[in-house]
Amino acid sequence: MKKKLTAFGKTIATQAAAAENPTMDVPIRALSNIKYDKGTGLITMGEKTAKRFFFNIAHVKKFVQTVAVARVSKGLSEENKSMSLRQVFYALRRTLPGTNIDIVDEQTESDAAVEDLELMTDALREQLRINANKSGSVAGKVVIEDRGDTIDWSKLGSGGWSVPSNVESIKFKKIEAKFVVYMEKAAMWERLNEDKFWEKHNCIIISSQGQATRGIRRLLQRLSTDHNLPIYVLTDFDPWGFYIYSVLKFGSISLAHISERLAIPKAKFLGLSADDVERYGLGRHKIKFKDVDHTRLKQIEKYAWFKDNKEWQRQFEMMKKMSAKVELDAIVSKGISFISEKYLPDKIKEKDWLE
Amino acid sequence: MKKKLTAFGKTIATQAAAAENPTMDVPIRALSNIKYDKGTGLITMGEKTAKRFFFNIAHVKKFVQTVAVARVSKGLSEENKSMSLRQVFYALRRTLPGTNIDIVDEQTESDAAVEDLELMTDALREQLRINANKSGSVAGKVVIEDRGDTIDWSKLGSGGWSVPSNVESIKFKKIEAKFVVYMEKAAMWERLNEDKFWEKHNCIIISSQGQATRGIRRLLQRLSTDHNLPIYVLTDFDPWGFYIYSVLKFGSISLAHISERLAIPKAKFLGLSADDVERYGLGRHKIKFKDVDHTRLKQIEKYAWFKDNKEWQRQFEMMKKMSAKVELDAIVSKGISFISEKYLPDKIKEKDWLE
Repeated sequence: MKKKLTAFGKTIATQAAAAENPTMDVPIRALSNIKYDKGTGLITMGEKTAKRFFFNIAHVKKFVQTVAVARVSKGLSEENKSMSLRQVFYALRRTLPGTNIDIVDEQTESDAAVEDLELMTDALREQLRINANKSGSVAGKVVIEDRGDTIDWSKLGSGGWSVPSNVESIKFKKIEAKFVVYMEKAAMWERLNEDKFWEKHNCIIISSQGQATRGIRRLLQRLSTDHNLPIYVLTDFDPWGFYIYSVLKFGSISLAHISERLAIPKAKFLGLSADDVERYGLGRHKIKFKDVDHTRLKQIEKYAWFKDNKEWQRQFEMMKKMSAKVELDAIVSKGISFISEKYLPDKIKEKDWLE
Repeated sequence: MKKKLTAFGKTIATQAAAAENPTMDVPIRALSNIKYDKGTGLITMGEKTAKRFFFNIAHVKKFVQTVAVARVSKGLSEENKSMSLRQVFYALRRTLPGTNIDIVDEQTESDAAVEDLELMTDALREQLRINANKSGSVAGKVVIEDRGDTIDWSKLGSGGWSVPSNVESIKFKKIEAKFVVYMEKAAMWERLNEDKFWEKHNCIIISSQGQATRGIRRLLQRLSTDHNLPIYVLTDFDPWGFYIYSVLKFGSISLAHISERLAIPKAKFLGLSADDVERYGLGRHKIKFKDVDHTRLKQIEKYAWFKDNKEWQRQFEMMKKMSAKVELDAIVSKGISFISEKYLPDKIKEKDWLE
């Protein structure tokens, strides 16, 4: 990584030394440059780029911000350390001598510079040593090695292993588990962990809180791609739950340039679906849609990756008719451990999932 | 616990069998029944109770809700399982036969019933097997035993142990660490963990996200009370950061009945203080106060436990003058590991904290 960043800096320095106008080619991150690739099942980025010049009033601030992030990232690389996006913002925040101009005023600026640098160096943010938030727990029959420690995910009591923001350097030493269940809520994870679901069914359970963190997405992706484990996704029956699944499986628009390294095309949606709500008699736990839910659903049903998918369109239609959402937690009304003893085993056995 | 719940149920059943009006004495959870005890340094609850009758239109719904929660809790106890507050809401949610009356309509109702039951049985929610959210990570030279697993907090790589929502049954087998640093943000925890701060300074590092979960508060409390470790709290310099410290140290108004088992009177505030902002030249990272910050600060400075504390009143005054907040993350502008190499060692050595 240090090499790439040094090369990036040298190009600019060479241009400056030759009295040229320093420039960089930045791939365009906009809907117009994003497409859904049916072949790979991924949201990917087109080839369009824009030139960014140093001697250009409209470009210079972003130019300097990108170089400043590269400098911070190189420093992190040399010191073998990492920073959060928020911390990078503060590391960049200073006033140019003799002026009242700050390099960055808002975190959105440094975040955008990080994304630009990811694109130009073809590196993951994590490889640039810049991390997103840390959240989530994991348990299951897996042994990993991380920073010199050997960690057995099946020997961590009621807590589990706390998933770091950056999982690039963890090594899988032994994987006995046969599949992975990812869920959006920590409370459901605690239910499955207390029931020793992962032990009885020889699997891995992972939770986050809401949308999966990048650390968790990379972890799931490595388990799917490198180790060929099926990934089952459990969310609430609502547009936000569907979107959590959508991001995990197809990638996201804002991170389209790294779909290959974040998305999990083989992920399967294990519920709650509209059919689950009926089958398990959860209709009485409906929570009426608000305007914001209707709007979100309308956006999701038009996504290129859902548009021609009959099964998913059927779900969207049924949700629209219900005009209500149902939380996965409602399933405890069928029994404390219904999820572990009946719901999950039945759904997996009957291959009752959406793709 | 099962005994207490059985006794609770029997009292009501006996009253009913004797054709009396079934009743329960519910301690009053309101500001009028809460006081700050200077001696213990805790927010505690007074002795006022209210009678709740079954045959009383204004009481019956709450009466039934409380009994229903007791039933669920007893079931959990018998099955040796636990549930989240959200799940308890769903477990309670049903329509009374022959009516269109639901036992609970909103989670606030079941939450209140859980709190009432805590008061009447003198048990922690966790002992009733009802858990709040799970969040946070821990690392340090400590070995615990939990659900039959021996877990070494110093051998968990970049992730750490994921703190469960309920820590009542974990056993401390070996504690080499000499103090605890609690911080509100996961990114700072990752910074300290990457720097192996806990190893170099023989301590424990714990983070949550925002306000500490009950699991973390209980963990800190046990480390303080049972094992006599100093607890240092790190937050942003803003009213919300001060409040995080306030809750950890003195307890909270809504949970005043269990301050003894949640609060940590010996907790020390290690920054950011107004003096830290000056000392470390963080003034340029000020973020201007919004109205909501002013309002919150005004509330906090009037709390009985801060009112006569000159040191804290001085902080509030300085914050008011600055009319700005400063995030702890801003400290990376002094150097990536400034927090581990300079800030924390100096502050602890010089006993530069607030109490």
